[in-house]
Amino acid sequence: MRESQTNLASDVLLDLGSAGPGPLHERLKQALRRAIRAGRIGPGSALPPSRRLAADLGCSRWAVTEAYSQLVAEGYLAARTGSATRVRWQRDAAQSQRRPSAGPAPRARYDLAPGLPDLRAFPRRPWADAIRAQLATVPYLELGYPAPAGHPELRGLLADYLRRARGAVATADDITLCTSVTDAVWRICRALRDANIHTLACEEPGWTRLREVARRSGLSIVSIRTDERGLRVADLARQPGLRAVLTTPAHQFPGGMVLAPERRAALLQWAREVDGVVIEDDYDAEFRYDRRPVATVQGMDPTRVILLKSLSKVLSPALGIGWIVAPPPWTEALRGAGTPISLPSTLDQLAFGTLLSSGAYDRHLRRCLLLYRARRDALVRALADRLPNHRVCGIAAGLHLVLHLPGRVDPTAVVAAAATRSVDVVALSRYHATSEQPEHGLVLGYGNLADGTVDEAVQHLTAAIRDAT
Amino acid sequence: MRESQTNLASDVLLDLGSAGPGPLHERLKQALRRAIRAGRIGPGSALPPSRRLAADLGCSRWAVTEAYSQLVAEGYLAARTGSATRVRWQRDAAQSQRRPSAGPAPRARYDLAPGLPDLRAFPRRPWADAIRAQLATVPYLELGYPAPAGHPELRGLLADYLRRARGAVATADDITLCTSVTDAVWRICRALRDANIHTLACEEPGWTRLREVARRSGLSIVSIRTDERGLRVADLARQPGLRAVLTTPAHQFPGGMVLAPERRAALLQWAREVDGVVIEDDYDAEFRYDRRPVATVQGMDPTRVILLKSLSKVLSPALGIGWIVAPPPWTEALRGAGTPISLPSTLDQLAFGTLLSSGAYDRHLRRCLLLYRARRDALVRALADRLPNHRVCGIAAGLHLVLHLPGRVDPTAVVAAAATRSVDVVALSRYHATSEQPEHGLVLGYGNLADGTVDEAVQHLTAAIRDAT
Repeated sequence: MRESQTNLASDVLLDLGSAGPGPLHERLKQALRRAIRAGRIGPGSALPPSRRLAADLGCSRWAVTEAYSQLVAEGYLAARTGSATRVRWQRDAAQSQRRPSAGPAPRARYDLAPGLPDLRAFPRRPWADAIRAQLATVPYLELGYPAPAGHPELRGLLADYLRRARGAVATADDITLCTSVTDAVWRICRALRDANIHTLACEEPGWTRLREVARRSGLSIVSIRTDERGLRVADLARQPGLRAVLTTPAHQFPGGMVLAPERRAALLQWAREVDGVVIEDDYDAEFRYDRRPVATVQGMDPTRVILLKSLSKVLSPALGIGWIVAPPPWTEALRGAGTPISLPSTLDQLAFGTLLSSGAYDRHLRRCLLLYRARRDALVRALADRLPNHRVCGIAAGLHLVLHLPGRVDPTAVVAAAATRSVDVVALSRYHATSEQPEHGLVLGYGNLADGTVDEAVQHLTAAIRDAT
Repeated sequence: MRESQTNLASDVLLDLGSAGPGPLHERLKQALRRAIRAGRIGPGSALPPSRRLAADLGCSRWAVTEAYSQLVAEGYLAARTGSATRVRWQRDAAQSQRRPSAGPAPRARYDLAPGLPDLRAFPRRPWADAIRAQLATVPYLELGYPAPAGHPELRGLLADYLRRARGAVATADDITLCTSVTDAVWRICRALRDANIHTLACEEPGWTRLREVARRSGLSIVSIRTDERGLRVADLARQPGLRAVLTTPAHQFPGGMVLAPERRAALLQWAREVDGVVIEDDYDAEFRYDRRPVATVQGMDPTRVILLKSLSKVLSPALGIGWIVAPPPWTEALRGAGTPISLPSTLDQLAFGTLLSSGAYDRHLRRCLLLYRARRDALVRALADRLPNHRVCGIAAGLHLVLHLPGRVDPTAVVAAAATRSVDVVALSRYHATSEQPEHGLVLGYGNLADGTVDEAVQHLTAAIRDAT
């Protein structure tokens, strides 16, 4: 008995050194806990009396009794008056099985996948300054639970911006903050279900992730084809009972066309006739190279359109800031109404408000517009040089274009061949919900492609197409 | 015709002045859009030929054609070759109805409601410094889509912290970031349902909001009573089929007791026997005044416990940062697995990581511990002075205590009377799921009570109790 107690002391002593800083009783507690957990002191084992362990360790008895009593409170030890303190804790057999750690996915050298803005262009200085400015002035009560709709100040500034820059009709009351477009669609789908709308029309082709989110939320999906004038709005009326559609009027994804004017009107007309709702995803409308950005459909009838957008394609998806502009009947449901919702942090909301009100956001957009236009020009030029017989579409706006491939070339084989050359690119077919007439092509995103590598990227892509032919 | 065209010009001219800065064609477009929307130019109206409007406005014809063509693209106007450009847009009748704006809720002068830490103590400077430091160094790719589990760097630092300070067993792989404890519980409930567990035991009394979230997620709730030794663990086994329990072992809410050591062991034993899971809400365990914080139950058997916590009770709910430590079988489901999840922004995650690694977080906790202990002392003293016959419980830890009221006093009447005196306080019965034997009392939170107002607050509360008696 005496011997095992001495062993314990040296075992614990050994561990005390590695327990880091902090008061001795605390380190002792941690060392004991580790020893118990590691099975070095088994269940039922008696611990040495506090006086003896204190002597062995050369510390005060108080430190030992303090550590013991703490571990008793935590259930590792059991103390009984007139008896030794014993180990109570029992290790469970299954406990030792752990998953190996998954490393981060390797990045492709040439990022031609759509979905990201230029992350190098993130306004780091203005953002840090905005956070600091907000923290210097924000009243302490604002650091409490955030308003479910989002901060009123940001909502007001956003309403101004959307009216001015996107031709939207919105006041602060119409805006609900969210964390992303998927979050927005998820909330909207829940609200649709609550409103007894169980089918959602999606563009074909369209952004796969949002279609999946809608399906996952319990809605049935109807695919509506697009053509060179955008969504085939007339097809909506052919679906009996349909009352909701998710669409990208200002810049169709992935096709890149603008919804034709008469179809904009017809879309709203349809929504009125079926007492339905148009969900307008305004994801990258700011970046138009041929004309001023096309205003939102929402502005033409704010009672029939839910407008949504996030900063993911404009600043960075890492911010987790998005918003929904909705007609009053939808607003309460979108703000949670009993279901937990997540919001961007209040400080981030206020910092974004600072960028909006200071003009830094507009400056960022102007800078990016020039950046992306130049990059698009370089990409289109490189494609024309190296792949002169391949049609390129959707170049007038946004951060991606469509490269059509000859019928004999399998786009998925190109994607695979490109991957081996460290080019990340996506087949157009990935955005199709149905397998009928999938077009032969690739969607090339240039938002996050480094300027110096455009030509190299196209060179490797050309080689990949050759490999796959 | 000529006359109405002149009117249009002056109407538009008037509006041009208020359209703010920007190129003329842009302001013209906005002014025209406003005029169309306001019904000043009705559907079908012909617009003046561009040459004439340009002359009337004294601007270039290009500016007018540019504005017209933009509005054609947006569907406000229709252009037909050889005919006048006409207004296409039609205002919908329902469109004019808008909700009045809801102002912010007025704040009580004395905040005795539980749920908030001291928002005045938020480490503003360290937070702003951490954000700036991160923005100065973070690689640009980190500004892309965040890892669904949360940033690996933060998860590693958090694992270190939880091992060191909370006696948890955790590696970065076991940790999943989330935005709040409600978000955590929501995700866990979904995972429980997927694992065919449809009933959740909750503490009675307990945090109402979490019970509601669980119910809203589709689970049935079983209430398990608590007593002076915490959750009555033996009652769990009396519920056939029960396999999940949500509990606050380190500091029961609202009762304030610690789960007794033998019950900690029994809780884990129960979980093993039913192949179940213990959901441990570690909401304010850092703030103990009588001893070192009691370590987590999770540390005793990490295969059976899901540990969760947020910064809401420690730093601020405005940050929206929380985490879940879960056994490997649960981890994938908690990270979304196809369902959209929201995360704190990457920058906020990294900033929190900076606070953890620099020791600023520990310093904040130490500072708050002293702050809250002193405030609790002042509150207990004031209550003893003014309400000497009222029992006070749960004062050894946390940011709240329970004030028992004599049987003849109706706590909800006290809450109402207190509100008229600008004291925000909550009846204990609010945290009860069942109406059997609701205890007579109030839960007094002092986390966000201003130090200088403790005595006044108790004075007003005393008067409210007198009013309600």
